[in-house]
Amino acid sequence: MPAKSQTWTFTNRPAILSTGVVGGPFEKKGQMADDFDRFFEDLWIGEDSYEKAQRKLIEEAVGIALKKRNLKETDIQFFLAGDLINQITPTSFAARTNAIPYLGLFSACATSMESLALAAFIVNHGGAEKVLAGASSHNATTEKQFRYPTEYGGQKPPTAQWTVTGAGFAVVGTEENGPAPRITSATIGKVLDLGISDPFNMGGAMAPAAVDTIEQHLRETGRDPSYYDLIVTGDLAKIGRSIALDLFKQRNLDIRSEQFQDCGLMVYDKSQPVQAGASGAGCSAIVLYGHLLNEMKKGRYQKILLVATGALLSPLSYQQGETIPCIAHACAIEYL
Amino acid sequence: MPAKSQTWTFTNRPAILSTGVVGGPFEKKGQMADDFDRFFEDLWIGEDSYEKAQRKLIEEAVGIALKKRNLKETDIQFFLAGDLINQITPTSFAARTNAIPYLGLFSACATSMESLALAAFIVNHGGAEKVLAGASSHNATTEKQFRYPTEYGGQKPPTAQWTVTGAGFAVVGTEENGPAPRITSATIGKVLDLGISDPFNMGGAMAPAAVDTIEQHLRETGRDPSYYDLIVTGDLAKIGRSIALDLFKQRNLDIRSEQFQDCGLMVYDKSQPVQAGASGAGCSAIVLYGHLLNEMKKGRYQKILLVATGALLSPLSYQQGETIPCIAHACAIEYL
Repeated sequence: MPAKSQTWTFTNRPAILSTGVVGGPFEKKGQMADDFDRFFEDLWIGEDSYEKAQRKLIEEAVGIALKKRNLKETDIQFFLAGDLINQITPTSFAARTNAIPYLGLFSACATSMESLALAAFIVNHGGAEKVLAGASSHNATTEKQFRYPTEYGGQKPPTAQWTVTGAGFAVVGTEENGPAPRITSATIGKVLDLGISDPFNMGGAMAPAAVDTIEQHLRETGRDPSYYDLIVTGDLAKIGRSIALDLFKQRNLDIRSEQFQDCGLMVYDKSQPVQAGASGAGCSAIVLYGHLLNEMKKGRYQKILLVATGALLSPLSYQQGETIPCIAHACAIEYL
Repeated sequence: MPAKSQTWTFTNRPAILSTGVVGGPFEKKGQMADDFDRFFEDLWIGEDSYEKAQRKLIEEAVGIALKKRNLKETDIQFFLAGDLINQITPTSFAARTNAIPYLGLFSACATSMESLALAAFIVNHGGAEKVLAGASSHNATTEKQFRYPTEYGGQKPPTAQWTVTGAGFAVVGTEENGPAPRITSATIGKVLDLGISDPFNMGGAMAPAAVDTIEQHLRETGRDPSYYDLIVTGDLAKIGRSIALDLFKQRNLDIRSEQFQDCGLMVYDKSQPVQAGASGAGCSAIVLYGHLLNEMKKGRYQKILLVATGALLSPLSYQQGETIPCIAHACAIEYL
């Protein structure tokens, strides 16, 4: 690894030992319904606020990930996670519940891969035997905070995206000897901002950051795009994906359309009114820890590059006339 | 290091190679004025919003830290930082400016040591040659967001604290061979919440988390408190410090009052109307990277344990009747 690289290579085989993936009623009607561990039938999840409901999503996903492997909270050394809500309170309150030493993270919707990259780095270098990594979002908390409360019934342009209600968490450790999904490298992105200021066009804003991180990753690992069966972005959705494909051409990156997917286009059914597609910090987390890992286990994919994309704006930064700074973090996951 | 430890030990001597510490007009009148690199004469710093002014604080502190060592942004591999503002926008916009691959962090006022702990871990294990770690806060952005706009002139109880306007950043790397402040270990805290819900008594809420992290740190390193010349908490201020001293006694931790200081009681002059003391994500960052490192260089202290404390609430979680979850992360800094 060159010293000035933004890519880490993990030689000690950190593996995804177990996962927990939960969603809400709208996700249950989506394309990936079979890949969830559990759905909640309404957005309140028995709580009196949507933020508390989001905390429950996290707690449930964490509980499922632990239970699948007969682990207790005390078997986990660190909890690396975050979300989109102010002061990431759903995650911090979940960290209060599980009482695992906690590293709070924020990269907006790129938080899923920030947490997995750091988790893999820590485990790879003996900083822990097992850690939990993940991210979550909730449609009603996110819409309320960034745009309008959903009860308001605001209209949305076709470039808008639908925030996923869901949480995806993974136990990362090195104890697995047999074949498993393993994090083999990670590339930490830098912030790019090409001047888009429309918070209803996040996919378009984030596409250049995704392409930059993919390009850096390929350059620093010396890999051709064909190394990966699939390069999957986090939540570029229709508009962003199409911009990314154009940028690949401009930069002579030979990434075929069939090989390039986006989690934002994989969650919901075509009949669901989600405009350009799905988004949210939970989006790439549920797609990776649910659908994609299942497909890897079935042998459909062996090598995936998951490039989670984040728009680092706030409602206030938008109101103050700022454009949208974006970032993308990538993890290479190989079944070996 | 036992596998289940929440403490990392760094054997490859990650050092603080350079620092940048900036403050506002109120900090200039404080006890530590000589330890700042630069003061700004007003809270606007030439910008049209306080959030943009906070971004400037970060950019200036980063610029100074780089310049002292003749470094450019491109010499730094990762930027690990965060702040208290919604979606940590001041930090993310500063990351847009410096274009260094960015890991956004959030532990409220414990962010300073979350960033230093992760920076030291990454550098210690060869994940980078040089990284930037730090945190910032701005009095007017924080008061506006968490309590009232300062222009409102709201009264405050004596348990309240004064948010520091300041940023402290450090370049962490391994290339220093001579004597230098080195991060020798770090303990990542877990979330504790003993039921305090008053956002004007953060110090009281955070004290148990600080004591828990200190106790874990001493147990896992096998150290007696006397190992450290100084154990310094982040921003417990008067009320929290006094509670912490009581808790030390209850838990049979032999930490003498003279040996136990708090950054929140070190920043301002006694004549300044700061109620219980200072607070803010910038508080422990400026005290460590300014005053404490200067005292270490002068030979006054050789071994310090810096325990940054964070209250992980949001205005919304408070309004929804939640109590305050708190966390503390510790870094041991030794001059060797």
